[in-house]
Amino acid sequence: MIDENFIKKIREQDRKTVSRAITLIESSNGSANQLLKFLYKFTGNAYRIGITGPPGAGKSTLTNQLTSYYRSLGKTVGIIAVDPTSPFSGGALLGDRIRMSDIGCDTGVFIRSMATRGSLGGLSKKAVEVADILDAAKYDIIIFETVGVGQSELDIAKAADTTVVILVPESGDSIQAMKAGLMEIADIFVINKCDRQGADTTYTALTTILHLYNRKERVPEVVKTIASENKGIVELAEEIDKHRQLLIETNKLESNRTKKLKERILENLNYLINEEISEIIESSYVDELVAMTLQGKLSYVEASELLLKNYKQRLRGK
Amino acid sequence: MIDENFIKKIREQDRKTVSRAITLIESSNGSANQLLKFLYKFTGNAYRIGITGPPGAGKSTLTNQLTSYYRSLGKTVGIIAVDPTSPFSGGALLGDRIRMSDIGCDTGVFIRSMATRGSLGGLSKKAVEVADILDAAKYDIIIFETVGVGQSELDIAKAADTTVVILVPESGDSIQAMKAGLMEIADIFVINKCDRQGADTTYTALTTILHLYNRKERVPEVVKTIASENKGIVELAEEIDKHRQLLIETNKLESNRTKKLKERILENLNYLINEEISEIIESSYVDELVAMTLQGKLSYVEASELLLKNYKQRLRGK
Repeated sequence: MIDENFIKKIREQDRKTVSRAITLIESSNGSANQLLKFLYKFTGNAYRIGITGPPGAGKSTLTNQLTSYYRSLGKTVGIIAVDPTSPFSGGALLGDRIRMSDIGCDTGVFIRSMATRGSLGGLSKKAVEVADILDAAKYDIIIFETVGVGQSELDIAKAADTTVVILVPESGDSIQAMKAGLMEIADIFVINKCDRQGADTTYTALTTILHLYNRKERVPEVVKTIASENKGIVELAEEIDKHRQLLIETNKLESNRTKKLKERILENLNYLINEEISEIIESSYVDELVAMTLQGKLSYVEASELLLKNYKQRLRGK
Repeated sequence: MIDENFIKKIREQDRKTVSRAITLIESSNGSANQLLKFLYKFTGNAYRIGITGPPGAGKSTLTNQLTSYYRSLGKTVGIIAVDPTSPFSGGALLGDRIRMSDIGCDTGVFIRSMATRGSLGGLSKKAVEVADILDAAKYDIIIFETVGVGQSELDIAKAADTTVVILVPESGDSIQAMKAGLMEIADIFVINKCDRQGADTTYTALTTILHLYNRKERVPEVVKTIASENKGIVELAEEIDKHRQLLIETNKLESNRTKKLKERILENLNYLINEEISEIIESSYVDELVAMTLQGKLSYVEASELLLKNYKQRLRGK
């Protein structure tokens, strides 16, 4: 199935083929790896933007408007939306994707929702792989839209070249107590729904904190928007572009990407070794060690040391 | 330093020694492993409770009151509080721990704050190891108090026998969009600050959702509290005890602990292997592969496969 023609069609941005390629990434590992081996050399051209923030901050509306703006400039956009999935319903409860309908029919826009269902750990890996496909399919801009509540979602947002964190006026009170991770990853802050009460206070609180405590070379910009009325979108796009220019001028775009790539390769190595461990070490041996630990005959540290020893012995014996 | 006397003093609940033991766990790995090898066989007697929820839900106040209640029953309590750390200030911005002062002077209570600063991944590992120390020091009850916003914090809450998720009346709107992880791990829900508007609506919304969509054998109980006025605390303690009884009667306490122990051992194995990789594989080789990947000569998957191959070769050669 993954032949020259398949690759060619992805490179031609054929929607059906791109869709099938993403499904391959999402479902199986063997063919996903195969596909990436072919396509990886075509990646690195798209600019990747992460948009994250708490539930209800208006991420989808903002992504929607930003996409429309980029389209008006003639740029193609790929959107990877990571939906929170309830363990109760088994599906995304939010109807956000519906609001995408005005850009959903545009052939210059490709939208893919990914559920957080199942292995949470593998999600950021898959999301970045989907971005690789869209990158190889020559989309100019790729937007990761994620809820900034879990480590996995933060990992996705971090994978972007520019990360935008959206807050709302009501966030004011909790900015001090804000999840450290969210503050850390922001290149640009957006205060959305700025027609609501408290917008100015939140803006002042945020900019003050950023100027007082910022430890990065550059203080993140804060942009006010009302995404539902398309206000502040051009300003946001301009800030994103300014950040991109700065990254290029300071050679940070490449060094950041190198750093992220290294992390990605090492994470995947970790993943490969885990797979091997579950293949190589007999599960009865694991259970035996667990039982001994529970009985107090071993510490949990000793149990894992014995497993490591076993893994190495089996590797050497092979 | 870790000699028979040291272990004996921990077992005697000597505060200074327990403190030093925890510092050992937090700071270094070699002696931490050594210590756990000695102490692990004394663990398994404490009942472990996880208390988690969004920032501002009143976790500290509730932990405080619950601890006072357990003390009135003559039980000793160890508290492991995982504070959100701001990357800006470099320290915990919340003064929650101060509120602990009325239980802080009680010799039957041991409180330890752990910062999320630094390696986020290792935090849950360390927090559970600290619980092992307190367990071996014969504290009857161990409470993990964490902010339910990151994967790491959720991991800590999951390490408990009974996990309590605290919400506030204002959570009502977002219960549907609530982080899946938080819903999944709750054995008991608390709606705190029930004197605030919206408490009944939130209670109804939550119980309805739980009854409609619950997939576990047991629908989590929902307890209303006003922790600041010490209301609902006894009811919460009773629900925790009912859950404990149920776990014991259905043999789940042991099977849950076995399952968690297995995960813990495998995670530690993973950790050991990662340490080995950074020792065994030359960093220049990693950098070389990263550069080749960035140039498009390799896919990132191929790069990690080559690293795995290198790791194995070096293991065999040893």
